[in-house]
Amino acid sequence: MRILVVNPNTSAQMTLDIARAAREGAQPGTEILCLSPEHGPDTIEGYTDETIAAYHTVDLLAGERSGYDGYVIACFGDPAVAACRELVAAPVVGIAEASFHMASALAHRWSVLTLLPRLKPVLEDLLLRYGVERRCASVRAVTLGVAAAAEDHERTAELLLPEARRAIAEDGAEAILLGCAGLGPVAAPLSGALGVPVLDGVSCAVGLVEALAARGLSTSKANAFAAPERGPLVGASANLEAAYAAGSGDS
Amino acid sequence: MRILVVNPNTSAQMTLDIARAAREGAQPGTEILCLSPEHGPDTIEGYTDETIAAYHTVDLLAGERSGYDGYVIACFGDPAVAACRELVAAPVVGIAEASFHMASALAHRWSVLTLLPRLKPVLEDLLLRYGVERRCASVRAVTLGVAAAAEDHERTAELLLPEARRAIAEDGAEAILLGCAGLGPVAAPLSGALGVPVLDGVSCAVGLVEALAARGLSTSKANAFAAPERGPLVGASANLEAAYAAGSGDS
Amino acid sequence: MRILVVNPNTSAQMTLDIARAAREGAQPGTEILCLSPEHGPDTIEGYTDETIAAYHTVDLLAGERSGYDGYVIACFGDPAVAACRELVAAPVVGIAEASFHMASALAHRWSVLTLLPRLKPVLEDLLLRYGVERRCASVRAVTLGVAAAAEDHERTAELLLPEARRAIAEDGAEAILLGCAGLGPVAAPLSGALGVPVLDGVSCAVGLVEALAARGLSTSKANAFAAPERGPLVGASANLEAAYAAGSGDS
Amino acid sequence: MRILVVNPNTSAQMTLDIARAAREGAQPGTEILCLSPEHGPDTIEGYTDETIAAYHTVDLLAGERSGYDGYVIACFGDPAVAACRELVAAPVVGIAEASFHMASALAHRWSVLTLLPRLKPVLEDLLLRYGVERRCASVRAVTLGVAAAAEDHERTAELLLPEARRAIAEDGAEAILLGCAGLGPVAAPLSGALGVPVLDGVSCAVGLVEALAARGLSTSKANAFAAPERGPLVGASANLEAAYAAGSGDS
Amino acid sequence: MRILVVNPNTSAQMTLDIARAAREGAQPGTEILCLSPEHGPDTIEGYTDETIAAYHTVDLLAGERSGYDGYVIACFGDPAVAACRELVAAPVVGIAEASFHMASALAHRWSVLTLLPRLKPVLEDLLLRYGVERRCASVRAVTLGVAAAAEDHERTAELLLPEARRAIAEDGAEAILLGCAGLGPVAAPLSGALGVPVLDGVSCAVGLVEALAARGLSTSKANAFAAPERGPLVGASANLEAAYAAGSGDS
Amino acid sequence: MRILVVNPNTSAQMTLDIARAAREGAQPGTEILCLSPEHGPDTIEGYTDETIAAYHTVDLLAGERSGYDGYVIACFGDPAVAACRELVAAPVVGIAEASFHMASALAHRWSVLTLLPRLKPVLEDLLLRYGVERRCASVRAVTLGVAAAAEDHERTAELLLPEARRAIAEDGAEAILLGCAGLGPVAAPLSGALGVPVLDGVSCAVGLVEALAARGLSTSKANAFAAPERGPLVGASANLEAAYAAGSGDS
Repeated sequence: MRILVVNPNTSAQMTLDIARAAREGAQPGTEILCLSPEHGPDTIEGYTDETIAAYHTVDLLAGERSGYDGYVIACFGDPAVAACRELVAAPVVGIAEASFHMASALAHRWSVLTLLPRLKPVLEDLLLRYGVERRCASVRAVTLGVAAAAEDHERTAELLLPEARRAIAEDGAEAILLGCAGLGPVAAPLSGALGVPVLDGVSCAVGLVEALAARGLSTSKANAFAAPERGPLVGASANLEAAYAAGSGDS
Repeated sequence: MRILVVNPNTSAQMTLDIARAAREGAQPGTEILCLSPEHGPDTIEGYTDETIAAYHTVDLLAGERSGYDGYVIACFGDPAVAACRELVAAPVVGIAEASFHMASALAHRWSVLTLLPRLKPVLEDLLLRYGVERRCASVRAVTLGVAAAAEDHERTAELLLPEARRAIAEDGAEAILLGCAGLGPVAAPLSGALGVPVLDGVSCAVGLVEALAARGLSTSKANAFAAPERGPLVGASANLEAAYAAGSGDS
Repeated sequence: MRILVVNPNTSAQMTLDIARAAREGAQPGTEILCLSPEHGPDTIEGYTDETIAAYHTVDLLAGERSGYDGYVIACFGDPAVAACRELVAAPVVGIAEASFHMASALAHRWSVLTLLPRLKPVLEDLLLRYGVERRCASVRAVTLGVAAAAEDHERTAELLLPEARRAIAEDGAEAILLGCAGLGPVAAPLSGALGVPVLDGVSCAVGLVEALAARGLSTSKANAFAAPERGPLVGASANLEAAYAAGSGDS
Repeated sequence: MRILVVNPNTSAQMTLDIARAAREGAQPGTEILCLSPEHGPDTIEGYTDETIAAYHTVDLLAGERSGYDGYVIACFGDPAVAACRELVAAPVVGIAEASFHMASALAHRWSVLTLLPRLKPVLEDLLLRYGVERRCASVRAVTLGVAAAAEDHERTAELLLPEARRAIAEDGAEAILLGCAGLGPVAAPLSGALGVPVLDGVSCAVGLVEALAARGLSTSKANAFAAPERGPLVGASANLEAAYAAGSGDS
Repeated sequence: MRILVVNPNTSAQMTLDIARAAREGAQPGTEILCLSPEHGPDTIEGYTDETIAAYHTVDLLAGERSGYDGYVIACFGDPAVAACRELVAAPVVGIAEASFHMASALAHRWSVLTLLPRLKPVLEDLLLRYGVERRCASVRAVTLGVAAAAEDHERTAELLLPEARRAIAEDGAEAILLGCAGLGPVAAPLSGALGVPVLDGVSCAVGLVEALAARGLSTSKANAFAAPERGPLVGASANLEAAYAAGSGDS
Repeated sequence: MRILVVNPNTSAQMTLDIARAAREGAQPGTEILCLSPEHGPDTIEGYTDETIAAYHTVDLLAGERSGYDGYVIACFGDPAVAACRELVAAPVVGIAEASFHMASALAHRWSVLTLLPRLKPVLEDLLLRYGVERRCASVRAVTLGVAAAAEDHERTAELLLPEARRAIAEDGAEAILLGCAGLGPVAAPLSGALGVPVLDGVSCAVGLVEALAARGLSTSKANAFAAPERGPLVGASANLEAAYAAGSGDS
C-alpha cells in the first residue's frame, strides 16, 4: 500500500516530523511518501494562512492523482480535505477527523489541545462540521507558535501537560488529542505522564487510510465529492487544468 | 459610504449582474465598487472551485485593504469570508449569512434554493457554521449550471418556481433565499409569483454592511479574526506580503 | 422612511433614552417616532412583567398599523414581536434578535450582559427560539434593577465592565451585547474600554429595519405571521377590534 | 386536593369540555374548579390571540393565588405558564408540557396533531422551549377552526384520524398528542381506531399536578420563577396590584 | 391500584429504603410491592454492573407480567426499562426519567447529583436518550460508594449539600435531582437546607405511574416496545421462555 | 495481532458469516478468533433480546480477558460495548460505531439499512449516543427477520436494494451502512449495483481495532471505562467473579 501524506505548510522541519509520525504504527507493507507545497505559509495559524495553504495543497494533490492508495492531509484544521476528495477516488483523510473518530472508540469524551487561542474557533467549526461536538469535552489552548512548538518538543510537552491535566480533571476528558500536525513526538511523553491515551492525528490518519484502503473502500462520488466538472479556469497550474480535464479526477 | 463587493469567480457577466443587484435598495450616499479576481474558476460549483476562488479572493482583498467602509463577498458559499475578516477592520459580510439573518427577521422558517444538488452539502455545512440550521426549512436544488442560470433569467425563474412552491407547501418555508450570487434578477418575479419574500443575498449583504458601518461597528479583532501575524510566506503576491506585514491588517 | 420604535414599558425616562439610541447611526432620511404604552409595568424584569407589557404593546401597535415603513420593539426580551408581525406587513424587529444577527457578522461568538440573574432563563429561551444559541458564548448577569441602570449610566458601565471582561477572557466572547433597551449610552464607553464591538440593540434594530424596508422586504404572511382572523374578542380595545376586523391587518 | 384549571379563552363551550376532561382519571379526593377569563379571544389561533389571552390568564390567576394545591393552564400553547409560576408557589402545569412528558414515558417518539397549519410554528417553538423536540416525530395539522372542532367531535375525530395514521406510518410516531384543549372527547375514539395511546393534555396536566402536589413538590422560586418584585404598574387590575404587592406572590 | 417497584440490585437494605420512598406521597388506594433480583451486583456503579443487573431485572419482571397496573425500575441509570416495556402493557417508568419530567415542570433548569464521577457519562447518555439534556444545568458528582451512601444518610446529605449549592450558584440549577435510588431519606433535609425542590426519583416514578394508569394510558406497542417475538432462546429461565411465548408479553 | 470477534447471539450460522466477514481486508498478520455465547437469543431483534445478549456477551468476555490485542462486538446495536471496555484494556469496538466512523471519512452523509422497523429506535438512540446523528441521512428498514436475512443473501440484497436507492435519491445518502452483523456477503453486490461505498460493520470494526492496536492505543481507564471495583456479586459465573476480582480488569 502506498500513502501520500501532504503537509500543507512549507516548513521543512515540520514535514520531517510529520513523515516520522506517519510511520509510527504503519503496517510493514505500507509505503509512505510525505510532500509539502513549494508555496504558502510556513505555519498555519489562522484563516488567511489556511486559505492560502488550502489552495497550494489542492494544487499539489492535483499533480499526484495516481499511484496512491490513499491520502492524508496533515494539518489539524483539515484544510482542503473536501476539495481533495473531489480530485481522487482513493480515500482522503484529515488528521483532525482521524483523531476525532479514533478517540471516540477509546473514550467517552476527549479534549483537543491547540497551540493558540485564536485556533479554538477554527476547531469548534471543525467539530461541528464533522458532527462530533458532543464527544469533545473541551478545546484548550496554550500560547505557543506552531514553529516554536516544533523546535523544542520537550518544552512543548511541559507547556501542554498542565492544560491536559485540567481537561481531564475539570472538563471530563478521558483522552487527549494533539491539535497540531507537528506534535507527534509529544504523544508518548504526555501519555506517560497523564495515564490516558494521547492521540497524534498523523499516525491516526495513516491508520484510518490503511483500514479503508485494505477493505477497498473509497470516497463516495455520489454527490458532495464528485469530480469537478470542466469549466473555464483562468490562470491555473497545468496540474489543476489536468485534474479538471480528467473529469473523474482519477484518470 | 464606500463598499467593495467582490465576486469570487472570474465571470464578467456575473460581476455585472452582481454589481446591479448590489445597488438595489442601497442608500443614496452609498458608493459601490464591484471587483472579481483575475484568476480562478468561471463559476463555483464544488469544493475545489471554492478552494481556488477563496485564495484569489483573499489575494484581491489584500490589495484593497483601505478606502472602504465595508466589504461584501458575493458567492453563496461565503468563501474566504473568515480570512478576509482577518485582513481588514471594516465589516466583511457574506451573501449567504446576510440572507440567513435578514430572512430570520421576516419568517419563522425559510428555504434556500440552489442550482446543483452537489451544493446542498456545502450549504448544510454553512448553515451549521452560522448556527442557523433550525431556521432553515429545507435546502432544495434544481439542476442548472451557474453559468446557464446567469444567461437566461426567465428560464431560471421558471425552473426555480416549482421547487420554491414545494418548499412552501411541503417544508413549511415562509420565505425563499436565492442560493447563488447571480440570481438577483430572479427575485422580483419569483416573489410576485409566490407571494412570500424572496431574498437576494447580494442586496441583503450590502444592506447589512450599510447598517453595521453606519453604526461604527467593525469586525472584532479579539480572537478569531485578529490580523495574521508575520511569518515566512513563500511565493505570495506583493499584496499578501504587505497584508501580513501590516500586522493589524489595516494600515 | 418612517420607523415606529415601541418601548413596551411605561418608563418615560427609558423612552427618552431609547429614542436617542434609535437615532444613532440612522440614515439621514429616516424619521423615527418613539412611543410607549400608557399602561403596564415601569420596567420588565420577569415573565409576569413581560406578559402584561406584551399585551399593551400589541394594543398600542394595533392603533399604529399604517404610516410606518417598519417597527422596532425595544425591550431585550422581544415581547410581542411575533404578535405584532401578524398585525402589520412592514418589518417588525426585536432588539434582541437584531443584535444577535448583527453581532454574528462581526464575531465568531458573542456574549449577552443582562441586569438581573432571573433574566438569564428568559434570554436562553430567546436564543433557542431564534436558533442562535451556539453563537452565544455566554449570558452573564449583574444584579442591578432596570430603573437603577437607566438612572446612572456611568455606574452601570462600571458594573458591567468586569462581567464583560470575564465573558471575553473566560467564555471566548469576541463582542458584547447589551441585554436591555436602556443601555445605549453605555455602548461607547464599554467598547472603548474593552476593545471589542459592543452592540446596542435599539440602534441595531433600526439599522435592520432600514435595510429590510429599503429593499422592499416585508414580513411573510404565508403561515406563522398571517393576519389574525376575525373571531369574537371580548372586552378588547377599539384598536384591537379594528385590527382583527381588518383581516389582513394592514388596511 | 384542590386544583384550578384555567381555560385561557372566553368560550363557555370549551370551558365545559375542559372541565369534563379534567375529571377523567382524577383521584377521588381531587376537587377541580374550571375558570376562564371574562375578556379576550374566543379561541386562540395565533400569536396575537395568545398574547391577549396570556394577559387575561395572568390577571385571572392573580385573583386566585390561594386556596389551590395546583394549577392547570388549559390551552396547548401553554400561554402564561411561566408568568403564573411567578405568582404562586403551588405547581402550575401547561397541558402541552404535561402531554409531552407523559407521552415520553409511553413511546419512543410521538406526534402532535394541531387544528391549523399556522399553529405548527407555535408548537415547534414550544417543543424547543421544553427541550423535547427530539422526542417529537412530527407536528401535523388539519385545517379546522378551534370553535368548529369543539362543536362536532365526531367530525373532528374523522378529520384527525388520517393525519394520525400518517404520523404513525410515515413519521414513526408511537403515540398521538391532541394539540388543543377542547379535544378530550376525541381521545378515546381515536385511540380505539389507532391502537396507540392518544393523550389529552388536560387530563394529563391534572395527573401531573396531582403527582407533584401529593409529594409536596412546588415551583422553584430560586430564579426564573421568583415572585415579581414591586414596581410601578400603571393601569393594572386590583388583583395584579395585590399580586405584585404580595412580594412572594403567595401571601 | 397495584404497582411493582423493582430494585435492580441485590442489596436488601436498599430495597427497604426504596420501598419506604415509594410510599411517600402515594395515593391511599395504591398498593406497592417492592422486589429485587436474587442475583447480580450489590450496587450498580458502572456499565458492567448495569449490564448484569439489567438482565436479572428483565428475568424478574418476566415472572411478574400480570397483576400490576404499572412498574417502576428503581435505579437511576434506568436499566432494562426499554426491555421491560416490551414485556408488559402496563406503564413502566424509570426513576431517572420520572425525575427529569417532574423537575421540568417545576424549574427552568435542574441539576443531578450522583455518587461517583464515573457515573457522569452514564447520566449524560441518559439525558440525551430522553432528549432532555438542555433542561439539565449540570451533572455533579461526589465520591461516595452507593452502599456507603445508603448506610449513613446524615453524612450523605452533608456530602451532597455543598455540591448542590454549587449547582444552584454556579450552574443555574433551580431544582436538585437525587441521582441514586437509595437517597430518598436525603430529599427532605436537603430541600430544607437549599430552599429549592429536591426530587427523589422513586417517589416521582410512583407518582407518574399512578397518573398514567389512572388515565388508562399504557405503553405503546406500535413499534419500539412491541412484545418480543418467539425465537430460539438458549438457556433462558422458565419465566423468560414464557414471556417470549406469550407473544404479546401480557397474557 | 490477535483479535477476538464476539457474535452476541447464539446462531452458529451467523457466527460463521461474521468470521468470514471479519477476515475481509484484515492484515496478513492478523489472527481472528470468532466466538459466541452459549446462551441467549438466536437473533437480536429488540430491547429484551439485546439485554439478554449483552449479559452473555459480558460473561463470555470476562473469560477472555487476556491473549488479545483487541475485541470486536459483532451486533449492530453494539450491545455491551461499554461494559466490555471496563473489563479489558485492549480496544473494544462495536460494529455500528466502526461503520459510523469509517463512513464519515468517505461521505458527507450516509444511511443505515436495518432489517426491521422496530430496530429504527434502537439505531436512532445509538447515533445519538455516539454523537453522529447529523452525519446520518436516514435509517431505513425493510421487514425481514435477521435469521431469514442470513439464510438467503441474494434475496436479502434484492430486498435491500430499492431501500438503499431511496436513501441515495431522497435522503441525500452518499454511502450505505449495513445495519446487521450478518450482512457482510451483501456488501459487494449492493455496492456494485449502487455505485457508492457499502460498509459492512464487522470488516470495518476489525480495521479500526487493527489501526488502534498497531499504534498502541487502548481504552481510556480514566473514568467511564475504569475497571469494575470489587463488590458483592450474587450468582455470577466464575469468569465474572474473576474479572471483578482482578480490579484492573486486565490482570
